[in-house]
Amino acid sequence: MSRILGVDPGLRCTGYGLLAEMGSGIPRLLEAGVIRLDAAASVESRLRTLGDELEGLLGKAAPDRVAVEKLYAHYRHPRTAILMGHARGVILFCAARRGLAVQHLPSTEVKKAVTGKGHASKGQIQSAVAAHFNLAEPPEPPDVADAIAVAFCAAARSAWAEP
Amino acid sequence: MSRILGVDPGLRCTGYGLLAEMGSGIPRLLEAGVIRLDAAASVESRLRTLGDELEGLLGKAAPDRVAVEKLYAHYRHPRTAILMGHARGVILFCAARRGLAVQHLPSTEVKKAVTGKGHASKGQIQSAVAAHFNLAEPPEPPDVADAIAVAFCAAARSAWAEP
Repeated sequence: MSRILGVDPGLRCTGYGLLAEMGSGIPRLLEAGVIRLDAAASVESRLRTLGDELEGLLGKAAPDRVAVEKLYAHYRHPRTAILMGHARGVILFCAARRGLAVQHLPSTEVKKAVTGKGHASKGQIQSAVAAHFNLAEPPEPPDVADAIAVAFCAAARSAWAEP
Repeated sequence: MSRILGVDPGLRCTGYGLLAEMGSGIPRLLEAGVIRLDAAASVESRLRTLGDELEGLLGKAAPDRVAVEKLYAHYRHPRTAILMGHARGVILFCAARRGLAVQHLPSTEVKKAVTGKGHASKGQIQSAVAAHFNLAEPPEPPDVADAIAVAFCAAARSAWAEP
């Protein structure tokens, strides 16, 4: 049983979702949540909190690998994307330091894996994630659903690759 | 005597320059160099090397604070800027974890502090840095000169602020 931690990086809110691969069946959702960062704090202080909390999470959750969305070529808000890059950098650094492999999955592939379509709204991803894992409510905030979705896609990829 | 480490973040090459503030005089250049990262390696592996080397440097150089350029509003190459953000994030994280204060200085202010002008080419910054510190040759690669320049600007700022 292999464990995948999906992470959706952000400097306000970083979502995560931990899945256990169950052979060829649908993976099991073990845990999900967000690391919230104080928007009034300095970038370095937020990154420190993020790294510290993520290290704690990696220790407790003990994933075998980490999955994140690939960078796109274009972002609507370049400054926000650069700040997201800071958070993503700390996440990749912490994963690499623990010797964990990191899968980078294209956004369209993640959306397709959970909703069946390469383009989907935040709400559609939340509903699809709730349906896959029989959740009573769609995961909130959307960052949690996005993190579960990227882990789901990583699990689906290994199920196709190793039938 | 306070020590400032200027850092110019990059995923190929991160420059650094360590200055010692000498009261009201020109600061002394103690050390400078680059952390080179393998462009063929994965982003996470490069970030790991960067963080490991930077931690070693912070331990040896024992700066009192770290100075970096502020983010701009616009970048010519958004994807490169996001990747630079990954490196910058790891640098800020390592600095924050050591409890070091971080100064974020506007690019135009850095250029003005070393060249007298808010807009200057890489070559002009290299020459100006060589002149300030009586170096036989302009620092190479330009990333080293940029890192020394940002530390120089941080030192100049505190000289103005505490006369």
